[in-house]
Amino acid sequence: MKLVLLSGGSGKRLWPLSNDARSKQFLKVLNNSFNESESMVQRVWSQLKSVHLASSSLIATNGSQVEMIQNQIGNDVPLVIEPERRDTFPAIALAASYLFSVMNTNLNEVVAILPVDPYVERDFFSKVKDLEMLLHQSGANLALLGIQPTYPSEKYGYIVPEEEEGEWIQVSHFQEKPNVEQAEALLKKNALWNSGVFAFKLGYVLSLLEEKGFPIEYDQLLLHYSSLPKISFDYEVVEKESNIAALSYDGYWKDLGTWNTLTDEMGITQMGKGILHHDCVNTHLINELDIPVTVVGASNLIVAASPDGILVSDKEQSPKIKELVKQYEQQPRYEERSWGWYKVLDDTIGEDGQVVLTKRMKMNAESFWHEQLPPLRSEVWTVISGKGELIVNEELHYLEAGEVFEFPQGAASELHALTEMELIAVQKGKVRKVDGKLNLVATPDENAANFHSLKTAETL
Amino acid sequence: MKLVLLSGGSGKRLWPLSNDARSKQFLKVLNNSFNESESMVQRVWSQLKSVHLASSSLIATNGSQVEMIQNQIGNDVPLVIEPERRDTFPAIALAASYLFSVMNTNLNEVVAILPVDPYVERDFFSKVKDLEMLLHQSGANLALLGIQPTYPSEKYGYIVPEEEEGEWIQVSHFQEKPNVEQAEALLKKNALWNSGVFAFKLGYVLSLLEEKGFPIEYDQLLLHYSSLPKISFDYEVVEKESNIAALSYDGYWKDLGTWNTLTDEMGITQMGKGILHHDCVNTHLINELDIPVTVVGASNLIVAASPDGILVSDKEQSPKIKELVKQYEQQPRYEERSWGWYKVLDDTIGEDGQVVLTKRMKMNAESFWHEQLPPLRSEVWTVISGKGELIVNEELHYLEAGEVFEFPQGAASELHALTEMELIAVQKGKVRKVDGKLNLVATPDENAANFHSLKTAETL
Repeated sequence: MKLVLLSGGSGKRLWPLSNDARSKQFLKVLNNSFNESESMVQRVWSQLKSVHLASSSLIATNGSQVEMIQNQIGNDVPLVIEPERRDTFPAIALAASYLFSVMNTNLNEVVAILPVDPYVERDFFSKVKDLEMLLHQSGANLALLGIQPTYPSEKYGYIVPEEEEGEWIQVSHFQEKPNVEQAEALLKKNALWNSGVFAFKLGYVLSLLEEKGFPIEYDQLLLHYSSLPKISFDYEVVEKESNIAALSYDGYWKDLGTWNTLTDEMGITQMGKGILHHDCVNTHLINELDIPVTVVGASNLIVAASPDGILVSDKEQSPKIKELVKQYEQQPRYEERSWGWYKVLDDTIGEDGQVVLTKRMKMNAESFWHEQLPPLRSEVWTVISGKGELIVNEELHYLEAGEVFEFPQGAASELHALTEMELIAVQKGKVRKVDGKLNLVATPDENAANFHSLKTAETL
Repeated sequence: MKLVLLSGGSGKRLWPLSNDARSKQFLKVLNNSFNESESMVQRVWSQLKSVHLASSSLIATNGSQVEMIQNQIGNDVPLVIEPERRDTFPAIALAASYLFSVMNTNLNEVVAILPVDPYVERDFFSKVKDLEMLLHQSGANLALLGIQPTYPSEKYGYIVPEEEEGEWIQVSHFQEKPNVEQAEALLKKNALWNSGVFAFKLGYVLSLLEEKGFPIEYDQLLLHYSSLPKISFDYEVVEKESNIAALSYDGYWKDLGTWNTLTDEMGITQMGKGILHHDCVNTHLINELDIPVTVVGASNLIVAASPDGILVSDKEQSPKIKELVKQYEQQPRYEERSWGWYKVLDDTIGEDGQVVLTKRMKMNAESFWHEQLPPLRSEVWTVISGKGELIVNEELHYLEAGEVFEFPQGAASELHALTEMELIAVQKGKVRKVDGKLNLVATPDENAANFHSLKTAETL
């Protein structure tokens, strides 16, 4: 059996911690058994390891998440990287072709698809394993994992079983987000919540691709990726399939997609600097800034602060923020990279239309950072701590705490951090938005409009 | 008549906006009639101008507030600067000696003492003028301005009149912060709230000084300042005086000392970047940071963010913060200076025990900044905008947007900002706390303990 974890989305619902570069699954807001903070991805990955599924897993993602994934769970996991963001059908098709032509997976091998961030107990993954046997026994083309509902929720999609009971659950049809009365009726029919987890034999999806006239070789599909329909696997495949079986899971399962549900699972009420006064009831504080946050006499709130912004919200009302923060048109001010992380301390547009970005950067020990500075962009570093070898235009400079280094314009630069390093970088140039990230360039013909997109919304 | 405005205190009660360098009276959170933000000091000063009292006024303050006062109300107002912080008796004595020996004020001239930040209507100051006539008519040694109470408050001190009514109010005694029952009884006796405003003839205070064996010449008193008792004028003088008259003021008067009272007078509910969602009732947002603050579904709160920290507090509970934030032992991260302002973007201690301070600085047009860098302290500037002439070790450098300038260690530096200028300064050195402010030095014998006091409290 092979597992494909889908790591997509960006999600403004957990603003200001989630942004275009850091989707909710990468936020380190959970507590593991060693009382260390971990992200949803890290939690799922350690669960997969403990049930010996990690070595059979690959992650389907997009380019902007690669460094984050490697930074959080290491470089060993195979990644299937979409050349552009489309939807789950193209992503799953690409992963299937990768299994087939790169990993030489047998066409009868069962492939299970999972979101990368379900919040579940470990026995959830034993049930995932059981999907393999279900496919073989039932002769179904798709095997789904359904969640035993605990209340008539209006938030989820439902898997509705056939009325005649057999040896396994045969799926009749699906229903998306019913109202309460409909949900109550569904519960009487033994309907299940759709967890987004399903399995098929590799050949099933490859045949579908061939029928639609797409290549099944990975290299070829990669080239034709932009011609694949921008549609979910649910719409393109699941809803059209008549032979679907399902398993029921009645353990703990939760979608930590909003502050309301996430804070329930945090384990602690405060992360980061500050004081959450004891007169606050059911309030959570998450502070990623270096300045303290003081919360007094305020109950049922989520207070979250990051380099991107500050949220103060009633927990029940927190789903509203997704719409509200669209107004900010903000670039991520914190990013994890393969070499470490950076955060933007300040961004200011000068009267010449150029932007000065002040960043704090942290390089991991033994990491490599390299960059080709554009002409006319200036950059100066002040090293806070650590040691590294910096090669600029083929000349070696030895950096250590206290050093100030001014890069020549247009320099080809490579840093090898000998130890963990921290530094302040002040960059000046024109700005271009690339892949949702801040990129400073300095070609004179850069469109002035780009500079303004850098600024966060003015006072409303 | 002369007016002495007492500008003291630092006040943690309006944290994170107020700090050791920026007392509450300097916070620009009020709205003037032109819909511009102004501070309490600016409001009082413009009121004094409108009743033609500004030219008769001087401000008694301490060294750390001088640049802030000049920045907010200009350089024309005479300042009497305490050589060290003691209490109101020494401060008033010093102001009296200044009036006598520097301004040659007549001993019979009436001097009125006022806090620098009462929130009142303009006719309050007409009543202050009336204290002069009261002193002459009553023959009293002290004339107080009492506030007609509007409810039996437990927060204020009361002026209790003699029972026999005369042509003016003769003061019997004082009572500090009574309980509600006591306050109700005081109201029946026509007692008044003590506004902290009082007047005397100049000779009265000078005689007291002479009796106690202190000099009355300004230069001499300045030299002996540290030997003056650290005691309030109320305890040292007012409570011992038997011949006190009072006037009653029944107009608007408020002490804007806590977030609760201050937000009542702000006029607007939001200052700075962010969204205060319409589902919030009686919530105020003040944001001095460059990142947005989103407030959703949260009522009766004050949300305030500054470079020093972030506060989320129920308004009624906000007086608690004074005690809570004592734990932070924080240095001010925002300061107004005569040449403009700076804010600390980042402070980090390297493994060598040295601190890297990253600041954004703004110089006013035509302002002068100068500094003698200590040896072994490094500093590098990146100019964001504006133009200036920088003289370093007697050599002239012309600075403009985009320029990166690295100061030689130990350089004597002076900048003349030709236009408004903004820049990023990255400073590295050892740190010393001087007068409650961050000072980077680099003498090798600096005590390591000082570095740690720079850091704000760790996660509690």
